[in-house]
Amino acid sequence: MRAIHIVTTRLSSSFIRPVLLDFVSCSPLRQFSTPRRFICAASKVNGGSRSGSIVAPLVVNEEFQNIDVNPPKGTRDFPPEDMRLRNWLFNHFKEVSRLFGYEEVDFPVLETEALFIRKAGEEIRDQLYCFEDRGNRRVALRPELTPSLARLVIQKGKSVSLPLKWFAVGQCWRYERMTRGRRREHYQWNMDIIGMPEVTAEAELISSIVTFFKRIGITASDVGFKVSSRKVLQEFFKKYGVPEDLFGRVCIIIDKIEKIPIDEIKKELGFTGISDDAIEQLLQVFSVKSLDDLEDILGGAGEAIADLKQLFSLAEKFGYSEWIQFDASVVRGLAYYTGIVFEGFDREGKLRAICGGGRYDRLLSTYGGDDIPACGFGFGDAVIVELLKEKDLLPELGQEVENIVCALDKDLQGAATTIATALKDKGQTVDLVLESKPLKWVFKRAARVNARRPVLVGKLVRSVSRFCLQVSNFKSNLMTWSCSI
Amino acid sequence: MRAIHIVTTRLSSSFIRPVLLDFVSCSPLRQFSTPRRFICAASKVNGGSRSGSIVAPLVVNEEFQNIDVNPPKGTRDFPPEDMRLRNWLFNHFKEVSRLFGYEEVDFPVLETEALFIRKAGEEIRDQLYCFEDRGNRRVALRPELTPSLARLVIQKGKSVSLPLKWFAVGQCWRYERMTRGRRREHYQWNMDIIGMPEVTAEAELISSIVTFFKRIGITASDVGFKVSSRKVLQEFFKKYGVPEDLFGRVCIIIDKIEKIPIDEIKKELGFTGISDDAIEQLLQVFSVKSLDDLEDILGGAGEAIADLKQLFSLAEKFGYSEWIQFDASVVRGLAYYTGIVFEGFDREGKLRAICGGGRYDRLLSTYGGDDIPACGFGFGDAVIVELLKEKDLLPELGQEVENIVCALDKDLQGAATTIATALKDKGQTVDLVLESKPLKWVFKRAARVNARRPVLVGKLVRSVSRFCLQVSNFKSNLMTWSCSI
Repeated sequence: MRAIHIVTTRLSSSFIRPVLLDFVSCSPLRQFSTPRRFICAASKVNGGSRSGSIVAPLVVNEEFQNIDVNPPKGTRDFPPEDMRLRNWLFNHFKEVSRLFGYEEVDFPVLETEALFIRKAGEEIRDQLYCFEDRGNRRVALRPELTPSLARLVIQKGKSVSLPLKWFAVGQCWRYERMTRGRRREHYQWNMDIIGMPEVTAEAELISSIVTFFKRIGITASDVGFKVSSRKVLQEFFKKYGVPEDLFGRVCIIIDKIEKIPIDEIKKELGFTGISDDAIEQLLQVFSVKSLDDLEDILGGAGEAIADLKQLFSLAEKFGYSEWIQFDASVVRGLAYYTGIVFEGFDREGKLRAICGGGRYDRLLSTYGGDDIPACGFGFGDAVIVELLKEKDLLPELGQEVENIVCALDKDLQGAATTIATALKDKGQTVDLVLESKPLKWVFKRAARVNARRPVLVGKLVRSVSRFCLQVSNFKSNLMTWSCSI
Repeated sequence: MRAIHIVTTRLSSSFIRPVLLDFVSCSPLRQFSTPRRFICAASKVNGGSRSGSIVAPLVVNEEFQNIDVNPPKGTRDFPPEDMRLRNWLFNHFKEVSRLFGYEEVDFPVLETEALFIRKAGEEIRDQLYCFEDRGNRRVALRPELTPSLARLVIQKGKSVSLPLKWFAVGQCWRYERMTRGRRREHYQWNMDIIGMPEVTAEAELISSIVTFFKRIGITASDVGFKVSSRKVLQEFFKKYGVPEDLFGRVCIIIDKIEKIPIDEIKKELGFTGISDDAIEQLLQVFSVKSLDDLEDILGGAGEAIADLKQLFSLAEKFGYSEWIQFDASVVRGLAYYTGIVFEGFDREGKLRAICGGGRYDRLLSTYGGDDIPACGFGFGDAVIVELLKEKDLLPELGQEVENIVCALDKDLQGAATTIATALKDKGQTVDLVLESKPLKWVFKRAARVNARRPVLVGKLVRSVSRFCLQVSNFKSNLMTWSCSI
């Protein structure tokens, strides 16, 4: 049952009566004559459903070429339907972050290139959108948010009290080879804790992601977290006498284990100077799936094992034990991680990693700042949407407007405007139809914008007989009739 | 009166009793011993107020140079305090847009350069952040949002029903000379109506800006709108026989009237080939401040006058007559405007234009699309903040967290975690302190994050005598004591 409000105006002393409509058939009893110019307008733009093409001939001296109407390759437009989904997703990111007491931050999309150039052979370096600006500065569109965060923390220096709990939702850019579902820009949700050496930090970060998953309907049977620690590699290095300065480079190579053939991995590891024997042992370590086995291989419980055991114990307290599992193969592809690393994955194994993060205790000091322990994660907006599609969990999001206000006669546009303003002053959303339109058009538009209440401003041309009118005072100089259809 | 909640855990059968605190003096009766590692941590980082610097020595092979900790020149970081202001502002932009029934959209930050290259001598062209990407495409960081909007509308073609009412809040980039308060990036709120030839469209756009101003405390005595129409120039051209293809170029020159000496303006106009006599007449037209005078000069009421009169009449219906005034000198600096143009200004005359917009009926067709009438405005995030500062209207925005949960003993971290999770499950925001901390530290942090309820998890070491405890069931295995201080 939808209520239709027909509003007439009682301006000064003249009284205009409402239009007669056949509400039994839900359609106008007779077509109200459309002002001539709009009929012309409609007929000019193929098919008549698009109005508003009547334009006085105007002088424009611009000579544009016809442009490509698509966004640059690998980028996206967000028309309303996509923007609603983006807002839905981002609101969940933001609400979860605030639930955990994190403060929102942001950084420039365009950063100094040097911030992203590291020497560990990361993919990221060859994928930078970088250029020289008009002041001859080397700049780059940020490929990730963490370096900017580190920069800001160093800049803030002693003025901030640790620990900091910060989150951001920002756009990042990588010039990647385009494959299905892989674009050159994506938005990334980051949560970071700065100034906290305890594993409780990682545990809380994973907890927040789990909270996010639960809110959008994803369960522990849909996704899980693979967890490991880069300290495993550190301990291995110690045991096999591998030089410490190979740490980042080896991590980057190991991260590719599931992406390129194992012989390639071995070859790349060989280039670093690690012995064939150590490489074999190394690959064995990274295939381990239980902490006990890892303890055996590393020969005793070191820091890596202790951290991981603490994390699994905390997972119980946070209530997400069923979501996480140990998996030594997880190392993540960024050079700066130093401790626990984790990765969200879909249990069906169809998609790329959903999110990933870890501890990066040395990032600030490598940039020249104080040594401050830190950890965080990045969660992209692409894979999660794929997953929601797979699981049929994408929300149905339509436009929502409380009122659509339309003058049924050109003379009444002013009255319709006044009514729309009055409704908006009361905090109600209003789609004001900006020209007088036939009822059929208004109903079509009302359905499209999901207007809950059409408010029609018209004149009564015959006496009302076939439907009940409910009169109420709307505003001193306006009268409202409502009837149900 | 603030309530402090001391929570003890009753895990399995053992019962741990709450800590004894001297709530009369609002400080801990005795300092609880901090775990040794944190004392070390604090002492390591100059001054002791920053914790968490104890990190196991880890191997990192990265050789970064010390980086510049500032964002690139002309760009901004958004630390939490600035982000709160940005969110406050953007939320008003978005809420007002939704109140008017507009749908949110967005476009890539990085667009095809050709989209912004126009031949009318606009400043914008020389200020583009443009470069060649790795695929040899000429791309640019968007200097404004309207061309992307036009591109998207053309791309959508017949699949959308007109009129469209769209809004966006997006970052734009211009490589400008840096002066006080002028940066190289800013966020811009845009509202646009596509497919509406009537002046009701412009009237509604101005109404939405007025609504925004009112919401943030700005009145008609603080700001106003100067309104004119480019059709004035069009009619002048007709009258003086100036070639039509000079339209955009002349608009751009006229827009500089208040920025460069009048002789320069005359010289630039001379370069276009307009006669000296016409130039004198032209400058006279643009100094007119009343519609009647304009009618006299143009010799009769043409479309320009009719449009403007309709706008002033609609302003009455919308209820913002006192905000707008006619001013022929307003032409705006973008080539594509064709009809009514408007500009928000501060009445004290201290600031640059606050916002601006107008009708651009030919933009879509110059890009190769159908002729669809359109108008919109851009509203930056910089000048408005300056104005709010001037008027002492900047809001005070602190972090807001409902609970701060802290274990007063390392053994109780798990219990604190469980409590925090239970609170979050109830939808309450929680800042969980991730290591055990002395009360003093917790109170300091609670004050900083504006926590309404500190939840302390501790052990009772002596009997409670000096303050009243109120016992309530929190969860089956938890007990809460509250007392007022």
